[in-house]
Amino acid sequence: MSFPGRVAILGGGTWATAIAKLVLYNAESINWYMRRRDRIDDFKRLGHNPVYLSSVKFDISRINFTTNLNKVVKESDTLILVTPSPYLKQHLKKLKEPLDKKFVVSAIKGIVPDENMIVTDYLKKFYNIPDSNLAVIGGPCHAEEVALERLSYLTIGCPDTLKARKITELLGNHFLKASTSKDVEGIEYGSVLKNVYAIAAGICYGLKYGDNFQAVLISNAIQELDRFLKAVHPMRRNICESAYLGDLLVTAYSRFSRNHTFGTMIGKGYSVKTAQIEMEMVAEGYYGTKCIKEINEQYHVDMPILDTVYNILYNKMSSFAEIKRLTETFR
Amino acid sequence: MSFPGRVAILGGGTWATAIAKLVLYNAESINWYMRRRDRIDDFKRLGHNPVYLSSVKFDISRINFTTNLNKVVKESDTLILVTPSPYLKQHLKKLKEPLDKKFVVSAIKGIVPDENMIVTDYLKKFYNIPDSNLAVIGGPCHAEEVALERLSYLTIGCPDTLKARKITELLGNHFLKASTSKDVEGIEYGSVLKNVYAIAAGICYGLKYGDNFQAVLISNAIQELDRFLKAVHPMRRNICESAYLGDLLVTAYSRFSRNHTFGTMIGKGYSVKTAQIEMEMVAEGYYGTKCIKEINEQYHVDMPILDTVYNILYNKMSSFAEIKRLTETFR
Repeated sequence: MSFPGRVAILGGGTWATAIAKLVLYNAESINWYMRRRDRIDDFKRLGHNPVYLSSVKFDISRINFTTNLNKVVKESDTLILVTPSPYLKQHLKKLKEPLDKKFVVSAIKGIVPDENMIVTDYLKKFYNIPDSNLAVIGGPCHAEEVALERLSYLTIGCPDTLKARKITELLGNHFLKASTSKDVEGIEYGSVLKNVYAIAAGICYGLKYGDNFQAVLISNAIQELDRFLKAVHPMRRNICESAYLGDLLVTAYSRFSRNHTFGTMIGKGYSVKTAQIEMEMVAEGYYGTKCIKEINEQYHVDMPILDTVYNILYNKMSSFAEIKRLTETFR
Repeated sequence: MSFPGRVAILGGGTWATAIAKLVLYNAESINWYMRRRDRIDDFKRLGHNPVYLSSVKFDISRINFTTNLNKVVKESDTLILVTPSPYLKQHLKKLKEPLDKKFVVSAIKGIVPDENMIVTDYLKKFYNIPDSNLAVIGGPCHAEEVALERLSYLTIGCPDTLKARKITELLGNHFLKASTSKDVEGIEYGSVLKNVYAIAAGICYGLKYGDNFQAVLISNAIQELDRFLKAVHPMRRNICESAYLGDLLVTAYSRFSRNHTFGTMIGKGYSVKTAQIEMEMVAEGYYGTKCIKEINEQYHVDMPILDTVYNILYNKMSSFAEIKRLTETFR
């Protein structure tokens, strides 16, 4: 078998569907694991994902659907993980097949709760996957725009650049340009923190701060991310590259991102609980805030924006007063 | 007299009016030069600028209006220049009073056409003002939000940090935070190039590129600006600071900025001439593009975005084809 071999998608959400579309642009067929049988049945009947990105039509004959996690792992060489990070642990609990010979690509933007670990670190530790068989997909990429075939860019992080390049070939096409990077940790932490900063941007928007201030907030956020990454995973990186800055921009400037919407509700005065109930979902940045806050207890990086969001979400402190205090740290 | 002494505003537009509001927050009175007598008469009668930011009320008794440039220069110690850059040269032609003993603050975002010089370099060369008496106002700041007293940040660039600090005190208040920098040239060039990049963002928006791509465009733009500044004025600077990145963000993400609107029309297929006639004005980035293109002939910095905008605006090349070519250089 030549790398990447048989490819599987694990997950059935928006981003999973967009990635499946990309892979099927280049691969003959894919294995696709979804937890729910009814979703698969509807997908087969309709020819598209019944719930997410339903405008994207699929050739069903090229997809091997399964609800059996062990089967899909056994029958695949490259696994693309696209489950929500809060559920990853319980998903993988069903797993009996070993992962140590597989190439695993994480397209999960988040941290494994309780463990406070980025996904690749978690997989390394608990599933014995070597560094060179782990990759991450980063970059500024709303799945909705991939569905519309609007030109987008992704970055594949992997210490093995040859394999990374193969993954760019698997995902790339005329509307999707993918490039490689060795900075797996930086891309993963960046994709967690951008959600925290999108919550901050939402809170400020809810409090009626204007565009001038949002630009200052984001300038300070990217510097905060840079400081954190320098401490947690020092290496030469240009924080202005699209995998870091671009990813932050597309999330923090989007009024449609879940994290921004969640923050906006908090800024308007909703309690965390009410905002979560109203949204019928939990924004990833909510978990990300706590995880990074705890991780940073070892590093003591100056992170005023993270601290502010943490105080508002977890210590029930006034968003009005906390953001006002934050503004004093900016320039 | 203690620095900054008697302060004058030179110019009658939106930004001039916002700066006058800021100065009058802290100073007893100001001298205010406007070219047109009828505008001054209307201003006095109405208690606000008749054309720009008309919601901002002024106490007329604290303003000494004049249409006499030599008088205002003679009677002032600190001059804040806020005329449009294309007209600066002809404005100053009327000047007989020397400027070499004045402190001159440029709030002009642009380059002196024909000379291809930033404003402070022009003043240094032709008016013998020493470096330490020249400052620049930068930062992400829509004048409209200053009028609304929405929290905003400015950066005062001046090699003399004590004087810079005095200017921050002159402009700052509870809704306007000002900080200092020694990077006069970097701030000025940044404020010119951000308009070029806003035109690029507009062109792409007009061509129906999406949010994913805009984030990549801006990530590449800030790196291009960084490369240019390193060549033209090498010094330690963090390009993610709000004076550079923030200023770019507030302009390029604003669909109301003139440069973005101009670019959008070009992207939709208007000719440059028609877009200018439709807008009844010329976007500063139009001149900035040509000036920086010519300046870069000495430096040979890799500037694919600038080159693309130049080709579209000045060589009548197809925006569709040129932007497509540009997308190949991005990652």
